[in-house]
Amino acid sequence: MAIVPKISDQEANPEARAVFDDIRATRKSDQINDFWRVLANDPPQAAAVWAQAKVVMAPGALDALTKELIYVAVSVANNCEYCIHTHTESARAKGMTAEQHKELMRVIALAATTNRIAIGYQIEPDERFRS
Amino acid sequence: MAIVPKISDQEANPEARAVFDDIRATRKSDQINDFWRVLANDPPQAAAVWAQAKVVMAPGALDALTKELIYVAVSVANNCEYCIHTHTESARAKGMTAEQHKELMRVIALAATTNRIAIGYQIEPDERFRS
Amino acid sequence: MAIVPKISDQEANPEARAVFDDIRATRKSDQINDFWRVLANDPPQAAAVWAQAKVVMAPGALDALTKELIYVAVSVANNCEYCIHTHTESARAKGMTAEQHKELMRVIALAATTNRIAIGYQIEPDERFRS
Amino acid sequence: MAIVPKISDQEANPEARAVFDDIRATRKSDQINDFWRVLANDPPQAAAVWAQAKVVMAPGALDALTKELIYVAVSVANNCEYCIHTHTESARAKGMTAEQHKELMRVIALAATTNRIAIGYQIEPDERFRS
Amino acid sequence: MAIVPKISDQEANPEARAVFDDIRATRKSDQINDFWRVLANDPPQAAAVWAQAKVVMAPGALDALTKELIYVAVSVANNCEYCIHTHTESARAKGMTAEQHKELMRVIALAATTNRIAIGYQIEPDERFRS
Amino acid sequence: MAIVPKISDQEANPEARAVFDDIRATRKSDQINDFWRVLANDPPQAAAVWAQAKVVMAPGALDALTKELIYVAVSVANNCEYCIHTHTESARAKGMTAEQHKELMRVIALAATTNRIAIGYQIEPDERFRS
Repeated sequence: MAIVPKISDQEANPEARAVFDDIRATRKSDQINDFWRVLANDPPQAAAVWAQAKVVMAPGALDALTKELIYVAVSVANNCEYCIHTHTESARAKGMTAEQHKELMRVIALAATTNRIAIGYQIEPDERFRS
Repeated sequence: MAIVPKISDQEANPEARAVFDDIRATRKSDQINDFWRVLANDPPQAAAVWAQAKVVMAPGALDALTKELIYVAVSVANNCEYCIHTHTESARAKGMTAEQHKELMRVIALAATTNRIAIGYQIEPDERFRS
Repeated sequence: MAIVPKISDQEANPEARAVFDDIRATRKSDQINDFWRVLANDPPQAAAVWAQAKVVMAPGALDALTKELIYVAVSVANNCEYCIHTHTESARAKGMTAEQHKELMRVIALAATTNRIAIGYQIEPDERFRS
Repeated sequence: MAIVPKISDQEANPEARAVFDDIRATRKSDQINDFWRVLANDPPQAAAVWAQAKVVMAPGALDALTKELIYVAVSVANNCEYCIHTHTESARAKGMTAEQHKELMRVIALAATTNRIAIGYQIEPDERFRS
Repeated sequence: MAIVPKISDQEANPEARAVFDDIRATRKSDQINDFWRVLANDPPQAAAVWAQAKVVMAPGALDALTKELIYVAVSVANNCEYCIHTHTESARAKGMTAEQHKELMRVIALAATTNRIAIGYQIEPDERFRS
Repeated sequence: MAIVPKISDQEANPEARAVFDDIRATRKSDQINDFWRVLANDPPQAAAVWAQAKVVMAPGALDALTKELIYVAVSVANNCEYCIHTHTESARAKGMTAEQHKELMRVIALAATTNRIAIGYQIEPDERFRS
C-alpha cells in the first residue's frame, strides 16, 4: 500500500489538477496512473516532474519508442516494479513488438553479466579512455 | 589495476585466441578491449560471453545502435565505469550523435528520479497490472 | 512470505526474549516489528543488530528525527520495501511532518538524478578532491 | 576522464552561461564545479537540473544541512564517487561537524545491514502496512 | 503478475520443450519453476541461459552448495525476490543447514555495512593494489 | 582520496589502537589495511565493526574461505572497489585457487543475468513460496 493516499480528481488542488488535465490532453486518454495520483500529494513536485517528463520523453533526436526502451532498461536495473510495469506498457503502446521486447530483455541480461565481470575483475577503462 | 593479468595474443590459449580472432573479424578492427584480455584468463567463460554478446548485439528486431543505447543505460544504472566508457564509444561508432547522447542521458536521469519516487512512496502497480 | 518463521514471545529463547524485552522498554511500546521476530531465528545476530541500532539511532550530534530521515533515504536507494514502511513510520512517530516527508522525497529524487548524470558522463571529482 | 569535455566560461552558450552566473550568485562563490561544466554540454538540461536543485535544496520544512546529509546518504547508497565528494564538502560548508559526519556514516552503515537482512529473509511489511 | 504469460508444456515450442525436458532430467524432478516457464516465451534465450546455468552451477572447483550460497548472496544484494526464494530453496535442497543459512545472512549483512563504509569515506584500495 | 585522514599507530587513541592490536594478533600480520586506518577516525565504530567482523568471519557452520567467497560476491554486486580488492586477496590467502576464483566470477555473472531476467519480466515467486 502506498505510504500516502492517492489523490482523486476531486481532492486535487488546482496545481495538481492542472497536471492531471495536461496528462490527459498529452496522452489523449482519460487514465491517470497511480504514480501521478500519489505524487499529487506534493503538487509542485508533481508539476515539476511532469514538466520534465513531457520534455524528455517527447520524440527528438531519439524517437519515442527508443526512449521508452531506455526507460524500461533503467527501471529493470533499478528494480522498480511500478516503473517496469507502466513503461513496458508504454513501450507496447508506442509500438514495441514481442520480438523487440525479447531483444530488449536480452541486452539487459547481457549487460548485467558483463557489468559484473568488469567490476568483479576490476578491469580498468582501456588506456585510450584515460588520457 | 585488474585483479588478474591481461592476456596478450601470445599468452592466449587456443580457445582464448579463437575469441580474439573472432572479435577482430566481427568488428573488422585489430583492437581487443581489455575486457576480453582479462576475461581470457577464463577461456571457456570468454568464449561463452563472446558467443552470447555476438548474438545479442547483432541487429534484429532492434537495430544495433538502439541496443548500444540500452547497454549504456544499464551500465550507468549499474555504475560500471568500464562498460560506460566502452559502450558509449561503441554507440558513437554505430552512429550515435551528440544530440542523441544528451537525450539518452536525459532519459536515464528522468527514470532515476521517477524510479525513486515510486519506490519511496511505495506506489503499487496500477490495478490493471495486478489481476 | 518470509523465508524463516516469525518467532513468538513464547518461542523465543532467552537471548531473543531479552532483545524483545529491551525493544519494548526502549520504545515504550508493546509492539515488536516482524523484522525482530524473523531475526530472532538467529538470536546472537538479533542481539548484535539491536545493540548496534540502539546506539546508532539514539540522539547524539544528530537528533533522532534526522537519523530516521537518513535511514529512509538509504532504504529508498536500496529499495527495501520493509524498511521504507517501518522507518517512514518511525520518522512520523518522531515528528516528521507531511511537508518534511515531501522535502525528503524531493531530495532523494534529485540526488538520484544527479548521481546518474555524474556517473553517466563519468565526471571525475574536482581537482581539489584528488590531491 | 569525463566522456564529454568541460565547458569553460568562454565556451558556454548564453543558456549555460546563465546557469554558471546563477550558481555563482546563489552560492556567493566564483567556483563552478565540474558537474556543471560537463552538464553545460546540454544547456537545457543544465538549466533544468539547476532550477530543480535550487528549489529542492533551499531551506524549507527541512534545513539546508539536513538536506545535504540526506543527499550524501543517497549518494553513498548509489555509489556516486563524484557526488559523495562534493556533497560531503557542501555539508561541511553548511556546518556539518566531524561528529555529525561520523553519525551520518553510522546510520548509513546500519541501514545497509538491516536493509539486506530484511531483503535476504524476505520479511514482509508488518500487517498494519498492508491493509 | 509477470509481464508475459507462463508457457505450459503444451504451449512450449520444441526448443522450449527441450529445455523443460533437460531441466527435468538434470534435476531429477518434474517441477519446472516459473522462471523457465516465463523465459520460454523466448526459446533461444531460455536455451542459452539454461545451457549456461547447467555448466556454471555444476560442481567443479567449488562444490554445488557453495555455488548456491554465492547465488543467494548476489540475489540478496540485487534485491531479486524471485531469485532469493528459489535459490535459498535450492541451497537447502543441496544440504544448507539452518545454521549455515544464518551464517550466510550474517556475512551478507556485514559486507553490506563495510561496503558502505568504504564507499562513504571513499577509501582507496591499499597501495599494494595500485601498482 | 579518502574523505577523512588515515590514522597512524601514533595518532590512534587507545580504543582505536586496541582495534589495531587485535587485528594484528588475530591475523598474525603486522599489516593494518587502510579501511581500519580510516575508520579509526571513529574509534567506537571501528571497535564495533571489528568485533562484528571477527565473530562473523570466523569459521563456524561455514568455513572461512566460503565466507570470503560470499563477501566478494556481495562486494561485486555492491560495486565496492575497495572491498573487492581486499576480500579477493583474503580469499586467496585462505586458499582460493585460480580455478575457484573463475567459478566464483561465473556464478556472480550468471546470477546477475537471471536476477535481471526475473525482475524485468516481473516473475513472481512460485506458488509454493506464497502460501
